[in-house]
Amino acid sequence: MKVDGVAYRTIWPAEDGAVEIIDQTRLPHEFTTARLETVADAARAIRTMMVRGAPLIGATAAYGMALAARADPSDAALEAAYDTLLATRPTAVNLRWALDDMRALLRDRPQGSRAAAAHARAREICDDDVAINAAIGGHGLALIRDIAATKPAGEAVNILTHCNAGWLATVDWGTATAPIYKAHDAGLSVHVWVGETRPRNQGASLTAFELGHHGVPHTVIADNVGGHLMQHGQVDMCITGTDRTVANGDVANKIGTYLKALAAHDNAVPFYIGLPSPSIDWTISDGRDIPIEERGAEEVSEMRGRTKDGRIETVRIVPDGSPVANYAFDVTPARLITGLITERGICDASRDGLLRLFPERAPPSSSLRT
Amino acid sequence: MKVDGVAYRTIWPAEDGAVEIIDQTRLPHEFTTARLETVADAARAIRTMMVRGAPLIGATAAYGMALAARADPSDAALEAAYDTLLATRPTAVNLRWALDDMRALLRDRPQGSRAAAAHARAREICDDDVAINAAIGGHGLALIRDIAATKPAGEAVNILTHCNAGWLATVDWGTATAPIYKAHDAGLSVHVWVGETRPRNQGASLTAFELGHHGVPHTVIADNVGGHLMQHGQVDMCITGTDRTVANGDVANKIGTYLKALAAHDNAVPFYIGLPSPSIDWTISDGRDIPIEERGAEEVSEMRGRTKDGRIETVRIVPDGSPVANYAFDVTPARLITGLITERGICDASRDGLLRLFPERAPPSSSLRT
Repeated sequence: MKVDGVAYRTIWPAEDGAVEIIDQTRLPHEFTTARLETVADAARAIRTMMVRGAPLIGATAAYGMALAARADPSDAALEAAYDTLLATRPTAVNLRWALDDMRALLRDRPQGSRAAAAHARAREICDDDVAINAAIGGHGLALIRDIAATKPAGEAVNILTHCNAGWLATVDWGTATAPIYKAHDAGLSVHVWVGETRPRNQGASLTAFELGHHGVPHTVIADNVGGHLMQHGQVDMCITGTDRTVANGDVANKIGTYLKALAAHDNAVPFYIGLPSPSIDWTISDGRDIPIEERGAEEVSEMRGRTKDGRIETVRIVPDGSPVANYAFDVTPARLITGLITERGICDASRDGLLRLFPERAPPSSSLRT
Repeated sequence: MKVDGVAYRTIWPAEDGAVEIIDQTRLPHEFTTARLETVADAARAIRTMMVRGAPLIGATAAYGMALAARADPSDAALEAAYDTLLATRPTAVNLRWALDDMRALLRDRPQGSRAAAAHARAREICDDDVAINAAIGGHGLALIRDIAATKPAGEAVNILTHCNAGWLATVDWGTATAPIYKAHDAGLSVHVWVGETRPRNQGASLTAFELGHHGVPHTVIADNVGGHLMQHGQVDMCITGTDRTVANGDVANKIGTYLKALAAHDNAVPFYIGLPSPSIDWTISDGRDIPIEERGAEEVSEMRGRTKDGRIETVRIVPDGSPVANYAFDVTPARLITGLITERGICDASRDGLLRLFPERAPPSSSLRT
């Protein structure tokens, strides 16, 4: 999407075989890009969160393997690169998936062709992510178009989102934001309520940044505000992303998603999830079994921002000695979700709905029964 | 309640006729008191939010009139004091009530006795507030005791609260916190989940400060976390305060209260309001008619805290150019509220429930019907 009028992806190959990324640690106050020359550069970019978001972490890891193969295509060097990259964010599912994919590709190939093959595959992984998100965007666009048709001419469709499931978390388009960008680019009038998303503020910093730069009208709100807006008819639909959706349609996403879904349900506002199929965990059948990560207290007790004179400072906002708990995700039960917007189309948040779009996932016994 | 082992109120008379307060603008990072010598001091204390919370603002205004009468008991001086104090926070209902009460008391009294009468009445207004909150605490204590009786020995009763309806917002005890302090002081094991309460962070700063100093176990959480905790059985009850409760039992309180009430309802967690009767607005019959204040964008886009080296800094956390909306309150419908804890006892959140405790408020036609 666009930044200062220029179309960007979050990661792209440079002409000389290196890789370039947007340095997201400087956002939203400063937009800079960074060059990755070596596997160490790629590992540092993931570890220090210059890149974040599951799809983008996977893409960066794939390019990290390509950078490793460019420098030294030996088995030993590639194994070392694999280990280095995997250790950056050990719980990131896409990271391991991308590394395993690259290792399998390179293992049985002559060393002389490994660098070129790795580079090509990393590009392909990026393009696949863009294609998935663009497809989610297309299906979601139809929903927004339907709502727009019910509104008086010139009145914007009001969409509430939470966290950053935007293009900065992917290679391009984003998942929750893809329908919004597609609608905006198609000339529909949309306005986005951007929940701040405490404690890490990905909404207030990243989603607001990307919508603003692409020219999409939006308003930042504290996470507490969503229910009030829905009570007053100021939200036409909600779209969020997901970290993991399980086989019955329950959705784990950034902490606070459940509260917005309750408010949507209480006020008959449709609540959708932008859902790339790689984030479906078919091995878990009930959302209550999803493990919920607890993160460091300092994410809650400290806040980082820009001072009036332009310095980036971290300030403490909780009294010394007060304990803090920091649950990173919650689970929204399928009963509160209007639909899942996948790259193959939109389905009910249910086992049957998911299997209709992904029939290859039906267990053999279930296909016997149908 | 206690700070560093010493029992405090938020406002108290000094021996020389001046008044002392806790300077709440320094909290939670620094505990300091301030002396009010003149009506100008009192006005500045209210305007700059050295004191905040409806009951405490009223009490400070009453003492402001007493300080004015001490310096110059003439009609002209008292009228000027009234105007000065009223202009500090023009929408604060308790402020106007206290000022009208003091003016009516002093108007027909000889000038020579005005200073002593004003001082005595200000003390009485403070004592009345303490008595109301202590009574709310007593009634709420019974609820906590009932829950404690159902838990295994040694397991704390987990109470979730939002914002600061604590003793710092009143003269002592607080409204939502009074039952908690009463339970803790009675030796019951309680643990409080303290919602941060964006955008002004009254939970993370003030409620955490006061619970910590009084020795009540507590944990600060982002506002997004409450629903997740309730899904996982980690909340036994919720208690919040209220800015305004209307005649049908709908409750206006700090933005985000509605979302917690939805989660409580979805998980069968009891949801109570600590409700001093002066905050009931009998003139409004439906919560949808309560006007909701919109406040400045900078409360959302900026955050104030303490740097590592001890300076108080304000940092910007929203990208330049992104609009912000800041609704200060929301309305929780009576159907989501388990009960209202008033100084006269606990009632259903309904017109009938309120009139049972406050029969003098029944309109004449309704008493004919009974």
